[in-house]
Amino acid sequence: MSRNPTACLLIIGNEVLSGRTKDANLQFLATRLGEIGIPLREVRVIPDVPDTIINTVNEVRQHFDHVFTTGGIGPTHDDITAECIARAFGVPWEQHPEAMALLAAHYERQGSEFNAARQRMATIPRGATLIENPVSVAPGFTIGNVHVMAGVPRIMQAMFETLAPGLEGGQAVVSRSVHADGLLEGNLAEGLGAIQARFPALDIGSYPYYRPDRQGVSLVAKGVDGAAVEAAAAEMAALIRGLGLEPVEGEVA
Amino acid sequence: MSRNPTACLLIIGNEVLSGRTKDANLQFLATRLGEIGIPLREVRVIPDVPDTIINTVNEVRQHFDHVFTTGGIGPTHDDITAECIARAFGVPWEQHPEAMALLAAHYERQGSEFNAARQRMATIPRGATLIENPVSVAPGFTIGNVHVMAGVPRIMQAMFETLAPGLEGGQAVVSRSVHADGLLEGNLAEGLGAIQARFPALDIGSYPYYRPDRQGVSLVAKGVDGAAVEAAAAEMAALIRGLGLEPVEGEVA
Repeated sequence: MSRNPTACLLIIGNEVLSGRTKDANLQFLATRLGEIGIPLREVRVIPDVPDTIINTVNEVRQHFDHVFTTGGIGPTHDDITAECIARAFGVPWEQHPEAMALLAAHYERQGSEFNAARQRMATIPRGATLIENPVSVAPGFTIGNVHVMAGVPRIMQAMFETLAPGLEGGQAVVSRSVHADGLLEGNLAEGLGAIQARFPALDIGSYPYYRPDRQGVSLVAKGVDGAAVEAAAAEMAALIRGLGLEPVEGEVA
Repeated sequence: MSRNPTACLLIIGNEVLSGRTKDANLQFLATRLGEIGIPLREVRVIPDVPDTIINTVNEVRQHFDHVFTTGGIGPTHDDITAECIARAFGVPWEQHPEAMALLAAHYERQGSEFNAARQRMATIPRGATLIENPVSVAPGFTIGNVHVMAGVPRIMQAMFETLAPGLEGGQAVVSRSVHADGLLEGNLAEGLGAIQARFPALDIGSYPYYRPDRQGVSLVAKGVDGAAVEAAAAEMAALIRGLGLEPVEGEVA
Protein backbone atom coordinates (compact mmCIF):
# COMPACT_ATOMS: atom_id res chain seq x y z
CA MET A 1 0.00 0.00 0.00
CA SER A 2 1.67 3.20 -1.18
CA ARG A 3 1.32 6.33 0.89
CA ASN A 4 -1.49 8.66 -0.12
CA PRO A 5 -0.43 12.20 -1.08
CA THR A 6 -1.34 14.80 1.56
CA ALA A 7 -3.02 18.18 1.40
CA CYS A 8 -2.99 21.40 3.39
CA LEU A 9 -5.61 24.14 3.04
CA LEU A 10 -4.86 27.83 3.62
CA ILE A 11 -7.95 29.97 4.11
CA ILE A 12 -6.75 33.51 3.51
CA GLY A 13 -8.86 36.39 4.77
CA ASN A 14 -9.39 38.77 7.66
CA GLU A 15 -13.13 38.29 7.28
CA VAL A 16 -12.96 34.69 8.52
CA LEU A 17 -10.71 35.60 11.48
CA SER A 18 -13.03 38.43 12.52
CA GLY A 19 -16.12 36.23 12.43
CA ARG A 20 -17.70 38.38 9.71
CA THR A 21 -17.70 35.47 7.25
CA LYS A 22 -18.42 31.84 8.14
CA ASP A 23 -16.05 29.64 6.17
CA ALA A 24 -17.89 27.26 3.90
CA ASN A 25 -14.92 25.81 2.03
CA LEU A 26 -13.19 23.60 4.60
CA GLN A 27 -15.83 20.89 4.76
CA PHE A 28 -16.28 20.76 0.98
CA LEU A 29 -12.55 20.39 0.33
CA ALA A 30 -12.05 17.95 3.22
CA THR A 31 -14.72 15.68 1.81
CA ARG A 32 -13.68 15.91 -1.85
CA LEU A 33 -9.98 15.50 -1.08
CA GLY A 34 -10.73 12.37 0.95
CA GLU A 35 -12.72 10.99 -1.96
CA ILE A 36 -9.84 11.42 -4.40
CA GLY A 37 -7.27 10.03 -1.96
CA ILE A 38 -5.44 13.25 -1.09
CA PRO A 39 -6.51 13.54 2.56
CA LEU A 40 -6.46 16.95 4.19
CA ARG A 41 -3.90 16.96 7.02
CA GLU A 42 -3.93 20.57 8.17
CA VAL A 43 -5.87 23.79 7.69
CA ARG A 44 -4.70 27.28 8.55
CA VAL A 45 -6.77 30.43 8.53
CA ILE A 46 -4.46 33.42 8.11
CA PRO A 47 -4.96 37.16 7.70
CA ASP A 48 -4.38 39.39 4.66
CA VAL A 49 -0.85 40.21 5.84
CA PRO A 50 1.85 39.77 3.18
CA ASP A 51 4.62 38.36 5.38
CA THR A 52 2.21 35.94 7.02
CA ILE A 53 0.94 34.67 3.66
CA ILE A 54 4.45 34.38 2.18
CA ASN A 55 5.97 32.62 5.20
CA THR A 56 3.03 30.28 5.66
CA VAL A 57 2.97 29.25 1.98
CA ASN A 58 6.69 28.60 2.03
CA GLU A 59 6.41 26.55 5.20
CA VAL A 60 3.49 24.34 4.23
CA ARG A 61 4.47 23.71 0.62
CA GLN A 62 7.54 21.88 1.95
CA HIS A 63 5.52 19.65 4.25
CA PHE A 64 2.53 18.64 2.16
CA ASP A 65 2.18 17.21 -1.34
CA HIS A 66 -0.52 19.74 -2.23
CA VAL A 67 -1.44 23.14 -0.84
CA PHE A 68 -4.84 24.64 -1.67
CA THR A 69 -5.59 28.27 -0.93
CA THR A 70 -8.94 30.04 -0.87
CA GLY A 71 -9.56 33.78 -0.90
CA GLY A 72 -7.88 36.99 -1.89
CA ILE A 73 -7.84 36.78 -5.69
CA GLY A 74 -10.43 39.45 -6.53
CA PRO A 75 -9.89 43.00 -7.84
CA THR A 76 -9.74 45.02 -4.58
CA HIS A 77 -6.82 46.27 -2.49
CA ASP A 78 -7.27 43.45 0.06
CA ASP A 79 -6.87 40.79 -2.65
CA ILE A 80 -3.16 40.16 -2.21
CA THR A 81 -2.90 36.39 -2.48
CA ALA A 82 -1.52 36.20 -6.05
CA GLU A 83 1.16 38.80 -5.44
CA CYS A 84 2.19 37.08 -2.18
CA ILE A 85 2.38 33.66 -3.85
CA ALA A 86 4.69 35.17 -6.50
CA ARG A 87 6.90 36.57 -3.73
CA ALA A 88 6.85 33.21 -1.93
CA PHE A 89 8.13 31.50 -5.09
CA GLY A 90 10.55 34.34 -5.92
CA VAL A 91 9.08 34.91 -9.38
CA PRO A 92 7.64 38.03 -11.04
CA TRP A 93 3.97 38.88 -10.60
CA GLU A 94 2.89 39.75 -14.10
CA GLN A 95 -0.01 39.88 -16.51
CA HIS A 96 -0.80 36.47 -17.96
CA PRO A 97 -1.66 36.80 -21.68
CA GLU A 98 -4.33 34.09 -21.72
CA ALA A 99 -5.99 35.40 -18.55
CA MET A 100 -5.88 38.95 -19.95
CA ALA A 101 -7.57 37.78 -23.15
CA LEU A 102 -10.26 35.83 -21.25
CA LEU A 103 -11.10 38.77 -19.02
CA ALA A 104 -10.93 41.38 -21.80
CA ALA A 105 -13.47 39.38 -23.80
CA HIS A 106 -15.66 38.87 -20.71
CA TYR A 107 -15.84 42.57 -19.84
CA GLU A 108 -16.38 43.52 -23.46
CA ARG A 109 -19.40 41.18 -23.56
CA GLN A 110 -20.61 42.74 -20.29
CA GLY A 111 -20.05 46.28 -21.54
CA SER A 112 -17.86 46.96 -18.47
CA GLU A 113 -14.52 48.71 -18.52
CA PHE A 114 -11.51 46.33 -18.27
CA ASN A 115 -9.82 48.69 -15.84
CA ALA A 116 -6.68 48.37 -13.73
CA ALA A 117 -8.55 46.70 -10.84
CA ARG A 118 -9.93 44.02 -13.14
CA GLN A 119 -6.58 43.53 -14.87
CA ARG A 120 -5.24 42.69 -11.41
CA MET A 121 -7.22 39.45 -11.62
CA ALA A 122 -5.17 38.48 -14.70
CA THR A 123 -1.88 39.24 -12.92
CA ILE A 124 -0.36 36.05 -11.55
CA PRO A 125 3.03 34.52 -10.76
CA ARG A 126 5.24 33.80 -13.78
CA GLY A 127 5.19 30.09 -14.61
CA ALA A 128 1.75 29.45 -13.11
CA THR A 129 -0.91 27.58 -15.07
CA LEU A 130 -4.52 28.77 -15.00
CA ILE A 131 -7.39 27.07 -13.20
CA GLU A 132 -10.55 27.65 -15.19
CA ASN A 133 -13.40 29.54 -13.54
CA PRO A 134 -16.65 28.51 -15.21
CA VAL A 135 -18.70 30.77 -12.92
CA SER A 136 -17.18 34.24 -13.18
CA VAL A 137 -14.24 33.85 -15.61
CA ALA A 138 -11.40 35.31 -13.45
CA PRO A 139 -9.12 32.26 -13.14
CA GLY A 140 -7.29 30.62 -10.29
CA PHE A 141 -3.83 29.19 -10.85
CA THR A 142 -1.39 26.45 -9.92
CA ILE A 143 2.30 27.08 -9.30
CA GLY A 144 4.44 24.20 -8.08
CA ASN A 145 2.26 22.26 -5.65
CA VAL A 146 0.16 25.31 -4.68
CA HIS A 147 -3.36 25.67 -6.07
CA VAL A 148 -4.83 29.14 -5.67
CA MET A 149 -8.62 29.38 -5.73
CA ALA A 150 -11.37 31.92 -5.06
CA GLY A 151 -12.98 32.31 -1.63
CA VAL A 152 -16.60 32.48 -2.81
CA PRO A 153 -17.78 28.87 -2.28
CA ARG A 154 -19.63 28.48 -5.58
CA ILE A 155 -16.59 29.67 -7.52
CA MET A 156 -14.11 27.70 -5.41
CA GLN A 157 -16.10 24.50 -5.90
CA ALA A 158 -16.23 24.98 -9.67
CA MET A 159 -12.47 25.66 -9.75
CA PHE A 160 -11.76 22.58 -7.67
CA GLU A 161 -13.79 20.37 -10.00
CA THR A 162 -11.84 21.64 -13.03
CA LEU A 163 -8.61 20.98 -11.13
CA ALA A 164 -9.41 17.60 -9.55
CA PRO A 165 -9.19 15.33 -12.63
CA GLY A 166 -5.59 16.47 -13.15
CA LEU A 167 -4.46 15.71 -9.60
CA GLU A 168 -2.77 12.40 -9.02
CA GLY A 169 -4.78 11.02 -6.15
CA GLY A 170 -4.32 7.97 -4.01
CA GLN A 171 -6.67 5.42 -2.53
CA ALA A 172 -10.04 6.88 -1.57
CA VAL A 173 -10.67 7.18 2.15
CA VAL A 174 -13.81 5.23 2.98
CA SER A 175 -15.84 5.41 6.15
CA ARG A 176 -18.52 3.45 8.00
CA SER A 177 -20.42 4.69 10.99
CA VAL A 178 -22.85 3.30 13.50
CA HIS A 179 -24.74 5.14 16.22
CA ALA A 180 -27.11 4.53 19.08
CA ASP A 181 -29.34 6.80 21.12
CA GLY A 182 -28.59 6.55 24.82
CA LEU A 183 -25.01 5.47 24.24
CA LEU A 184 -22.49 7.06 26.65
CA GLU A 185 -18.83 7.60 25.73
CA GLY A 186 -17.70 6.72 29.23
CA ASN A 187 -19.20 3.24 28.83
CA LEU A 188 -17.83 2.45 25.39
CA ALA A 189 -14.36 4.00 25.71
CA GLU A 190 -12.51 0.88 26.83
CA GLY A 191 -14.04 -1.36 24.16
CA LEU A 192 -13.52 1.23 21.43
CA GLY A 193 -9.88 1.67 22.39
CA ALA A 194 -9.46 -2.08 21.98
CA ILE A 195 -10.99 -1.91 18.49
CA GLN A 196 -8.60 0.92 17.57
CA ALA A 197 -5.72 -1.23 18.82
CA ARG A 198 -6.84 -4.13 16.61
CA PHE A 199 -7.08 -1.83 13.53
CA PRO A 200 -4.08 0.49 13.92
CA ALA A 201 -4.21 1.63 10.27
CA LEU A 202 -7.77 2.94 10.67
CA ASP A 203 -8.95 6.15 12.24
CA ILE A 204 -11.59 5.18 14.81
CA GLY A 205 -13.54 8.07 16.31
CA SER A 206 -16.32 8.60 18.83
CA TYR A 207 -18.63 11.62 18.46
CA PRO A 208 -21.41 12.37 20.90
CA TYR A 209 -24.54 14.07 19.56
CA TYR A 210 -26.92 16.26 21.47
CA ARG A 211 -30.33 16.82 19.93
CA PRO A 212 -33.33 18.33 21.64
CA ASP A 213 -35.09 14.96 21.55
CA ARG A 214 -32.23 12.46 21.62
CA GLN A 215 -28.64 12.06 22.74
CA GLY A 216 -26.17 9.38 21.90
CA VAL A 217 -22.85 8.66 20.23
CA SER A 218 -21.76 7.99 16.65
CA LEU A 219 -18.78 5.70 16.14
CA VAL A 220 -16.84 6.12 12.90
CA ALA A 221 -14.16 3.98 11.23
CA LYS A 222 -12.19 5.53 8.36
CA GLY A 223 -9.34 4.39 6.20
CA VAL A 224 -8.24 3.31 2.76
CA ASP A 225 -8.66 -0.43 3.45
CA GLY A 226 -12.35 -1.06 2.81
CA ALA A 227 -12.37 -4.59 4.26
CA ALA A 228 -10.78 -3.41 7.50
CA VAL A 229 -13.30 -0.56 7.72
CA GLU A 230 -16.16 -3.08 7.35
CA ALA A 231 -14.67 -5.37 9.97
CA ALA A 232 -14.16 -2.51 12.43
CA ALA A 233 -17.73 -1.31 11.86
CA ALA A 234 -19.01 -4.81 12.69
CA GLU A 235 -16.99 -4.77 15.92
CA MET A 236 -18.37 -1.34 16.80
CA ALA A 237 -21.92 -2.63 16.30
CA ALA A 238 -21.14 -5.63 18.52
CA LEU A 239 -19.71 -3.30 21.17
CA ILE A 240 -22.97 -1.32 21.21
CA ARG A 241 -25.04 -4.52 21.45
CA GLY A 242 -22.85 -5.66 24.34
CA LEU A 243 -23.90 -2.49 26.17
CA GLY A 244 -27.56 -3.48 25.73
CA LEU A 245 -28.36 -0.97 22.97
CA GLU A 246 -29.34 -1.40 19.33
CA PRO A 247 -26.74 -0.13 16.84
CA VAL A 248 -28.05 1.81 13.82
CA GLU A 249 -25.93 1.96 10.66
CA GLY A 250 -24.82 5.35 9.41
CA GLU A 251 -24.71 8.76 11.03
CA VAL A 252 -27.59 10.02 13.14
CA ALA A 253 -30.20 11.69 10.89
CA MET B 1 -3.11 53.28 22.02
CA SER B 2 -1.67 50.09 23.49
CA ARG B 3 -1.51 46.99 21.37
CA ASN B 4 -4.39 44.55 21.77
CA PRO B 5 -3.45 41.05 22.94
CA THR B 6 -3.68 38.44 20.17
CA ALA B 7 -5.26 35.00 19.98
CA CYS B 8 -4.70 31.80 18.05
CA LEU B 9 -7.24 28.97 17.87
CA LEU B 10 -6.27 25.31 17.47
CA ILE B 11 -9.12 23.08 16.36
CA ILE B 12 -7.96 19.56 17.22
CA GLY B 13 -9.66 16.64 15.55
CA ASN B 14 -9.50 14.24 12.62
CA GLU B 15 -13.26 14.60 12.22
CA VAL B 16 -12.95 18.21 11.02
CA LEU B 17 -10.11 17.39 8.60
CA SER B 18 -12.06 14.48 7.11
CA GLY B 19 -15.17 16.60 6.53
CA ARG B 20 -17.21 14.38 8.87
CA THR B 21 -17.82 17.28 11.27
CA LYS B 22 -18.47 20.88 10.24
CA ASP B 23 -16.63 23.14 12.65
CA ALA B 24 -18.99 25.46 14.50
CA ASN B 25 -16.51 27.00 16.94
CA LEU B 26 -14.35 29.27 14.76
CA GLN B 27 -16.99 31.90 14.06
CA PHE B 28 -18.22 32.01 17.65
CA LEU B 29 -14.73 32.48 19.07
CA ALA B 30 -13.71 34.96 16.33
CA THR B 31 -16.70 37.13 17.16
CA ARG B 32 -16.44 36.92 20.96
CA LEU B 33 -12.66 37.45 20.96
CA GLY B 34 -13.10 40.55 18.81
CA GLU B 35 -15.68 41.86 21.24
CA ILE B 36 -13.36 41.52 24.22
CA GLY B 37 -10.39 42.99 22.35
CA ILE B 38 -8.32 39.83 21.90
CA PRO B 39 -8.56 39.52 18.12
CA LEU B 40 -8.08 36.13 16.54
CA ARG B 41 -4.99 36.22 14.31
CA GLU B 42 -4.67 32.61 13.19
CA VAL B 43 -6.55 29.33 13.27
CA ARG B 44 -5.11 25.89 12.69
CA VAL B 45 -7.03 22.67 12.30
CA ILE B 46 -4.77 19.77 13.19
CA PRO B 47 -5.22 16.00 13.50
CA ASP B 48 -5.20 13.79 16.59
CA VAL B 49 -1.49 13.08 16.18
CA PRO B 50 0.59 13.59 19.36
CA ASP B 51 3.70 15.11 17.77
CA THR B 52 1.62 17.46 15.65
CA ILE B 53 -0.36 18.67 18.67
CA ILE B 54 2.75 19.06 20.85
CA ASN B 55 4.79 20.89 18.20
CA THR B 56 1.94 23.13 17.13
CA VAL B 57 1.08 24.13 20.71
CA ASN B 58 4.72 24.91 21.45
CA GLU B 59 5.03 26.97 18.27
CA VAL B 60 1.90 29.07 18.60
CA ARG B 61 2.09 29.72 22.34
CA GLN B 62 5.31 31.65 21.68
CA HIS B 63 3.74 33.84 18.98
CA PHE B 64 0.34 34.74 20.41
CA ASP B 65 -0.78 36.13 23.75
CA HIS B 66 -3.51 33.53 24.06
CA VAL B 67 -4.01 30.09 22.53
CA PHE B 68 -7.45 28.49 22.64
CA THR B 69 -7.92 24.84 21.78
CA THR B 70 -11.13 22.96 21.03
CA GLY B 71 -11.61 19.21 20.93
CA GLY B 72 -10.07 16.05 22.26
CA ILE B 73 -10.83 16.24 25.99
CA GLY B 74 -13.44 13.49 26.28
CA PRO B 75 -13.06 9.96 27.69
CA THR B 76 -12.20 7.95 24.55
CA HIS B 77 -8.87 6.81 23.10
CA ASP B 78 -8.86 9.62 20.51
CA ASP B 79 -9.13 12.29 23.25
CA ILE B 80 -5.42 13.02 23.59
CA THR B 81 -5.35 16.81 23.89
CA ALA B 82 -4.75 17.03 27.66
CA GLU B 83 -1.91 14.52 27.63
CA CYS B 84 -0.28 16.28 24.66
CA ILE B 85 -0.55 19.69 26.33
CA ALA B 86 1.19 18.25 29.40
CA ARG B 87 3.99 16.94 27.17
CA ALA B 88 4.20 20.31 25.37
CA PHE B 89 4.73 22.04 28.72
CA GLY B 90 7.01 19.28 30.04
CA VAL B 91 4.88 18.65 33.12
CA PRO B 92 3.23 15.48 34.45
CA TRP B 93 -0.25 14.53 33.26
CA GLU B 94 -2.00 13.61 36.47
CA GLN B 95 -5.33 13.38 38.23
CA HIS B 96 -6.53 16.77 39.46
CA PRO B 97 -8.13 16.38 42.92
CA GLU B 98 -10.84 19.02 42.38
CA ALA B 99 -11.76 17.65 38.94
CA MET B 100 -11.83 14.10 40.35
CA ALA B 101 -14.19 15.22 43.13
CA LEU B 102 -16.49 17.06 40.71
CA LEU B 103 -16.75 14.11 38.36
CA ALA B 104 -17.06 11.50 41.13
CA ALA B 105 -20.04 13.41 42.54
CA HIS B 106 -21.55 13.86 39.08
CA TYR B 107 -21.43 10.16 38.20
CA GLU B 108 -22.68 9.18 41.63
CA ARG B 109 -25.75 11.42 41.08
CA GLN B 110 -26.19 9.82 37.64
CA GLY B 111 -25.76 6.31 38.98
CA SER B 112 -22.95 5.70 36.46
CA GLU B 113 -19.65 4.08 37.21
CA PHE B 114 -16.74 6.54 37.59
CA ASN B 115 -14.50 4.24 35.57
CA ALA B 116 -11.00 4.67 34.14
CA ALA B 117 -12.27 6.31 30.93
CA ARG B 118 -14.20 8.92 32.87
CA GLN B 119 -11.29 9.50 35.27
CA ARG B 120 -9.29 10.40 32.17
CA MET B 121 -11.38 13.58 31.95
CA ALA B 122 -10.05 14.61 35.38
CA THR B 123 -6.45 13.95 34.33
CA ILE B 124 -4.76 17.20 33.29
CA PRO B 125 -1.33 18.83 33.21
CA ARG B 126 0.18 19.61 36.61
CA GLY B 127 -0.18 23.32 37.40
CA ALA B 128 -3.25 23.87 35.22
CA THR B 129 -6.32 25.64 36.57
CA LEU B 130 -9.79 24.34 35.77
CA ILE B 131 -12.28 25.94 33.40
CA GLU B 132 -15.77 25.25 34.69
CA ASN B 133 -18.13 23.26 32.48
CA PRO B 134 -21.70 24.20 33.44
CA VAL B 135 -23.15 21.87 30.78
CA SER B 136 -21.60 18.45 31.37
CA VAL B 137 -19.25 18.91 34.38
CA ALA B 138 -15.97 17.57 32.84
CA PRO B 139 -13.77 20.69 33.01
CA GLY B 140 -11.45 22.40 30.57
CA PHE B 141 -8.23 23.94 31.85
CA THR B 142 -5.75 26.76 31.43
CA ILE B 143 -2.00 26.27 31.59
CA GLY B 144 0.26 29.21 30.84
CA ASN B 145 -1.43 31.08 28.00
CA VAL B 146 -3.17 27.98 26.63
CA HIS B 147 -6.89 27.50 27.25
CA VAL B 148 -8.13 23.97 26.58
CA MET B 149 -11.84 23.61 25.83
CA ALA B 150 -14.32 20.99 24.62
CA GLY B 151 -15.16 20.58 20.95
CA VAL B 152 -18.93 20.28 21.34
CA PRO B 153 -20.11 23.83 20.56
CA ARG B 154 -22.60 24.17 23.40
CA ILE B 155 -20.00 23.06 25.95
CA MET B 156 -17.20 25.12 24.37
CA GLN B 157 -19.35 28.25 24.44
CA ALA B 158 -20.25 27.75 28.09
CA MET B 159 -16.57 27.18 28.96
CA PHE B 160 -15.54 30.30 27.06
CA GLU B 161 -18.08 32.42 28.91
CA THR B 162 -16.78 31.22 32.28
CA LEU B 163 -13.24 31.99 31.10
CA ALA B 164 -13.81 35.34 29.37
CA PRO B 165 -14.31 37.60 32.43
CA GLY B 166 -10.86 36.59 33.69
CA LEU B 167 -9.04 37.38 30.44
CA GLU B 168 -7.37 40.74 30.23
CA GLY B 169 -8.79 42.09 26.99
CA GLY B 170 -7.98 45.17 24.98
CA GLN B 171 -10.05 47.62 23.04
CA ALA B 172 -13.10 46.06 21.40
CA VAL B 173 -12.94 45.75 17.64
CA VAL B 174 -15.90 47.60 16.16
CA SER B 175 -17.21 47.37 12.65
CA ARG B 176 -19.51 49.24 10.27
CA SER B 177 -20.70 47.96 6.96
CA VAL B 178 -22.60 49.29 4.00
CA HIS B 179 -23.82 47.39 0.94
CA ALA B 180 -25.57 47.94 -2.35
CA ASP B 181 -27.24 45.61 -4.81
CA GLY B 182 -25.75 45.89 -8.27
CA LEU B 183 -22.40 47.10 -6.96
CA LEU B 184 -19.39 45.59 -8.77
CA GLU B 185 -15.99 45.17 -7.11
CA GLY B 186 -14.19 46.10 -10.32
CA ASN B 187 -15.84 49.53 -10.24
CA LEU B 188 -15.24 50.34 -6.59
CA ALA B 189 -11.74 48.91 -6.18
CA GLU B 190 -9.79 52.07 -6.90
CA GLY B 191 -11.92 54.26 -4.61
CA LEU B 192 -11.91 51.67 -1.83
CA GLY B 193 -8.13 51.36 -2.02
CA ALA B 194 -7.91 55.12 -1.53
CA ILE B 195 -10.13 54.89 1.57
CA GLN B 196 -7.90 52.12 2.97
CA ALA B 197 -4.89 54.36 2.34
CA ARG B 198 -6.53 57.21 4.28
CA PHE B 199 -7.34 54.91 7.22
CA PRO B 200 -4.26 52.68 7.49
CA ALA B 201 -5.11 51.53 11.03
CA LEU B 202 -8.44 50.11 9.90
CA ASP B 203 -9.18 46.87 8.12
CA ILE B 204 -11.27 47.78 5.06
CA GLY B 205 -12.77 44.83 3.18
CA SER B 206 -14.94 44.22 0.16
CA TYR B 207 -17.17 41.12 0.05
CA PRO B 208 -19.36 40.28 -2.94
CA TYR B 209 -22.63 38.49 -2.27
CA TYR B 210 -24.52 36.23 -4.62
CA ARG B 211 -28.15 35.55 -3.82
CA PRO B 212 -30.68 33.96 -6.11
CA ASP B 213 -32.52 37.28 -6.39
CA ARG B 214 -29.78 39.85 -5.87
CA GLN B 215 -26.06 40.36 -6.22
CA GLY B 216 -23.90 43.13 -4.91
CA VAL B 217 -21.04 43.95 -2.58
CA SER B 218 -20.72 44.64 1.15
CA LEU B 219 -17.98 47.01 2.26
CA VAL B 220 -16.76 46.64 5.84
CA ALA B 221 -14.56 48.86 8.03
CA LYS B 222 -13.17 47.36 11.23
CA GLY B 223 -10.89 48.61 13.94
CA VAL B 224 -10.55 49.70 17.54
CA ASP B 225 -10.94 53.45 16.77
CA GLY B 226 -14.70 53.93 16.62
CA ALA B 227 -14.52 57.47 15.20
CA ALA B 228 -12.26 56.36 12.36
CA VAL B 229 -14.58 53.42 11.62
CA GLU B 230 -17.54 55.85 11.39
CA ALA B 231 -15.61 58.20 9.11
CA ALA B 232 -14.51 55.37 6.82
CA ALA B 233 -18.09 54.05 6.64
CA ALA B 234 -19.28 57.51 5.56
CA GLU B 235 -16.63 57.55 2.82
CA MET B 236 -17.67 54.08 1.67
CA ALA B 237 -21.29 55.26 1.42
CA ALA B 238 -20.17 58.30 -0.60
CA LEU B 239 -18.14 56.02 -2.88
CA ILE B 240 -21.26 53.93 -3.59
CA ARG B 241 -23.33 57.07 -4.27
CA GLY B 242 -20.63 58.28 -6.64
CA LEU B 243 -21.17 55.09 -8.64
CA GLY B 244 -24.87 55.96 -8.97
CA LEU B 245 -26.15 53.42 -6.42
CA GLU B 246 -27.88 53.80 -3.07
CA PRO B 247 -25.81 52.58 -0.10
CA VAL B 248 -27.66 50.62 2.60
CA GLU B 249 -26.24 50.51 6.12
CA GLY B 250 -25.31 47.15 7.58
CA GLU B 251 -24.76 43.76 6.02
CA VAL B 252 -27.10 42.41 3.38
CA ALA B 253 -30.04 40.65 5.05
